[in-house]
Amino acid sequence: MIAPSPAALDALKNALGPAGWTQDAFEIAPHLTEWRNRWTGETPILLKPASTDEVARLVTICAEHQVAIVPQGGNTGLVGGQIPYGEVLLSTRRLRTVRDVTPLDDAMTLETGITLLEAQQRAASANRYFPLSLAAEGTATVGGVISTNAGGTQVLRYGMMRDLVLGLEAVMPNGEIFHGLKRLRKDNTGYDLKQLLIGAEGTLGVITAATLKLFPIMRSRAVAIVGLETAAASIELLARAKGETGGGVEAFELMKRLGTELVLRNIPDTREPLDSQPEWSVLIEIASGSPGGAEAQLTALLEVAFEEGLITDAAIAQNDAQRAAFWRLREEHSAALKPEGGGWKHDVSVPISRIAEYIDEATAAVERFHPGARVSVFGHIGDGNLHYDVLPGVGQDIPAFIARWKEGSQVVHDIVARYDGSISAEHGLGRLKTEEAKRYKTPLEVSTMQAVRKAIDPQRIMNPDVLF
Amino acid sequence: MIAPSPAALDALKNALGPAGWTQDAFEIAPHLTEWRNRWTGETPILLKPASTDEVARLVTICAEHQVAIVPQGGNTGLVGGQIPYGEVLLSTRRLRTVRDVTPLDDAMTLETGITLLEAQQRAASANRYFPLSLAAEGTATVGGVISTNAGGTQVLRYGMMRDLVLGLEAVMPNGEIFHGLKRLRKDNTGYDLKQLLIGAEGTLGVITAATLKLFPIMRSRAVAIVGLETAAASIELLARAKGETGGGVEAFELMKRLGTELVLRNIPDTREPLDSQPEWSVLIEIASGSPGGAEAQLTALLEVAFEEGLITDAAIAQNDAQRAAFWRLREEHSAALKPEGGGWKHDVSVPISRIAEYIDEATAAVERFHPGARVSVFGHIGDGNLHYDVLPGVGQDIPAFIARWKEGSQVVHDIVARYDGSISAEHGLGRLKTEEAKRYKTPLEVSTMQAVRKAIDPQRIMNPDVLF
Repeated sequence: MIAPSPAALDALKNALGPAGWTQDAFEIAPHLTEWRNRWTGETPILLKPASTDEVARLVTICAEHQVAIVPQGGNTGLVGGQIPYGEVLLSTRRLRTVRDVTPLDDAMTLETGITLLEAQQRAASANRYFPLSLAAEGTATVGGVISTNAGGTQVLRYGMMRDLVLGLEAVMPNGEIFHGLKRLRKDNTGYDLKQLLIGAEGTLGVITAATLKLFPIMRSRAVAIVGLETAAASIELLARAKGETGGGVEAFELMKRLGTELVLRNIPDTREPLDSQPEWSVLIEIASGSPGGAEAQLTALLEVAFEEGLITDAAIAQNDAQRAAFWRLREEHSAALKPEGGGWKHDVSVPISRIAEYIDEATAAVERFHPGARVSVFGHIGDGNLHYDVLPGVGQDIPAFIARWKEGSQVVHDIVARYDGSISAEHGLGRLKTEEAKRYKTPLEVSTMQAVRKAIDPQRIMNPDVLF
Repeated sequence: MIAPSPAALDALKNALGPAGWTQDAFEIAPHLTEWRNRWTGETPILLKPASTDEVARLVTICAEHQVAIVPQGGNTGLVGGQIPYGEVLLSTRRLRTVRDVTPLDDAMTLETGITLLEAQQRAASANRYFPLSLAAEGTATVGGVISTNAGGTQVLRYGMMRDLVLGLEAVMPNGEIFHGLKRLRKDNTGYDLKQLLIGAEGTLGVITAATLKLFPIMRSRAVAIVGLETAAASIELLARAKGETGGGVEAFELMKRLGTELVLRNIPDTREPLDSQPEWSVLIEIASGSPGGAEAQLTALLEVAFEEGLITDAAIAQNDAQRAAFWRLREEHSAALKPEGGGWKHDVSVPISRIAEYIDEATAAVERFHPGARVSVFGHIGDGNLHYDVLPGVGQDIPAFIARWKEGSQVVHDIVARYDGSISAEHGLGRLKTEEAKRYKTPLEVSTMQAVRKAIDPQRIMNPDVLF
């Protein structure tokens, strides 16, 4: 990375005045380290534009001076795509205007420095629902969530972030503003350029505002944790649940016993949900447009599943507190791994029908590769998305285990590839996985992405080390 | 358009042998005229590949010889994007293999010459639902429907074709095969290249197979036609219906009295649905995951809407025959215009909240521009999509009226642009609207699309006269 010239830095500073930038190491520090402390970067300057026009002015200067830019939202990304290594850092957090909320359009237009939680709250105050939900939602920004096409727990019914964006405004790599903030559900007038920007991890421009889809608030909601003997049974149950509710399943989260045990051991105020302590359990959430409909559907579903021997145990949450407690068991799975010495973490997806087979094959391969290793499997199996984490065996040497992480991950990912899966289902590639992804992409895919990127950012100034 | 050289034609003929091409004028003729007889093209040869490899061989030859190609599916497009004017014509209709149907994945992979109706039937035979539905579905192919990002009557709940595609296989303009037939719901590993091919109207490659999303079959379904005094009331009713059913509205179709009258007059075996003959009516279809749920929700909705004065009249279909009769009133709207001397047809979208205002303003402008003209408005207002058609006044000179079509359409489209709408909501641009779309796109949008196209098809051999 070539450092920006003094002239370029002066131009950037003069563009916005003192409120628009900082070189104060203390202020910049939290922007350079991501929350798992895996990445610590460096930058000559933190740019803090407060409007789309200010972003455009900055990017124009960078384009003129061939200065590379890393855009950053809430800095909650898990693959290091938001961390600069010498590039100027452009934070979108001061882009905070709510442009409009129109309930009749089921749409709201927000600038992208607004957090995901704030976006959900803004929708709720208009008597609407914005479904995307993930652990970091209090800090993650709308812009970051769009740039990484984030997923989370509500994808099964409502889709990824890509599916929730009606329109975008962005500053393109030459500094021009793309005005695409349409509130339309249908528009077939050429290539859908916003689809390129979504999930581009900041490599094709800086997204400054977005029009998001809103949904009606459901009339009833019910949550259960059920026990099963095999992962394969959970897939049958999923198909059954979708059919019986006409698509009313909002979440379907698999948990292996090891993960549940670690949560119960390492996270305070958690309780065993099922006395039978089954090897596999699933958290199901159903929502319905009819008052009382969700509870009725869930009860009927579980009764039939019991009779047919598909499930061995079940507990339906009786109130909001119990619902929250059930969800906490699932959501604390990542945090519960830390005290065990960390692990080789994977965010993979495979076709839903092949999940059980995949788990068996990958686990056998991991055990051959590193005898004694423990496998924690959990995740959004309603979307085919597994968080497949490998932990050191009890008493094993942890640094030696961590040192085998890259090799071990290839074992896991090679099997994903054979199952026509994805090595990054919802986190993106960033700095962490770009190189590895090249192993699994065809030359045609890589060269097409490179050609498209070059067409839009011929100087490659946008997040140059990320993606292809 | 430069005609292909004799050497190029020979290479194409030799590539597949006699089953793979024809120059027989009688066989080619139906491929050159679209169903409204607006376009009649010409081609030196009709290519009829029966596999992806055959498509790849043909496109490779075309790339080597710089021969332009128009891909064609069922030839039901309404904007002439599938009609060659000197290009070689590549029909995808012989790509007819069902690659797989996996109900546990809610997915099926089909080659793209299969018709939309056959796709729906294939899903139904696996006890699943494929929702995209439109008048031409018996002839329109999966490939054509993807290439034009088609809409239809079920978009409100299930989305456009773009939202229903999990993966694609395509032959790129250099003849290489893009293998993207993933059955995954989540895959964040670089730019989502399939999004470029969807809706590209054949300008970026030939789509040869697709993996489509399937849905559970709903447990109950109810249809009503309701009368309203104003178009604005229908928008209030839509919001109310979505809220009361938790997103269970599958179709919400507005009809103005003039359109209903023309259907009753010009289409045999149709009956007045509401004795009150309201100025505006709406066809609502609700579906639910609970047996009996749809009827209960629809009845409750209409009772409240009545009490509040939002609707003036309503009839709920009592059986399948009545449901079909109600739908027929809506679906025959286009056909019913023909005997009136045709019209200036528009497929526009505007934000849902502004539909009523848009109709008023556009209609006043049309009446100023062509006094006496009659306006028929109908369409998928749940998606903000209006088919806004202008008919000659009774007794007016029809050829003189038709001659003003282009000018009159600009009146309609200029107002659409001021409402941040789209001049082609679901039909695409094709040969019909590409020029006009340039009036409403920004230079940045046009130049970005051109740059992306050039990156993927540097020789511009794919459908060169369509899009930018």
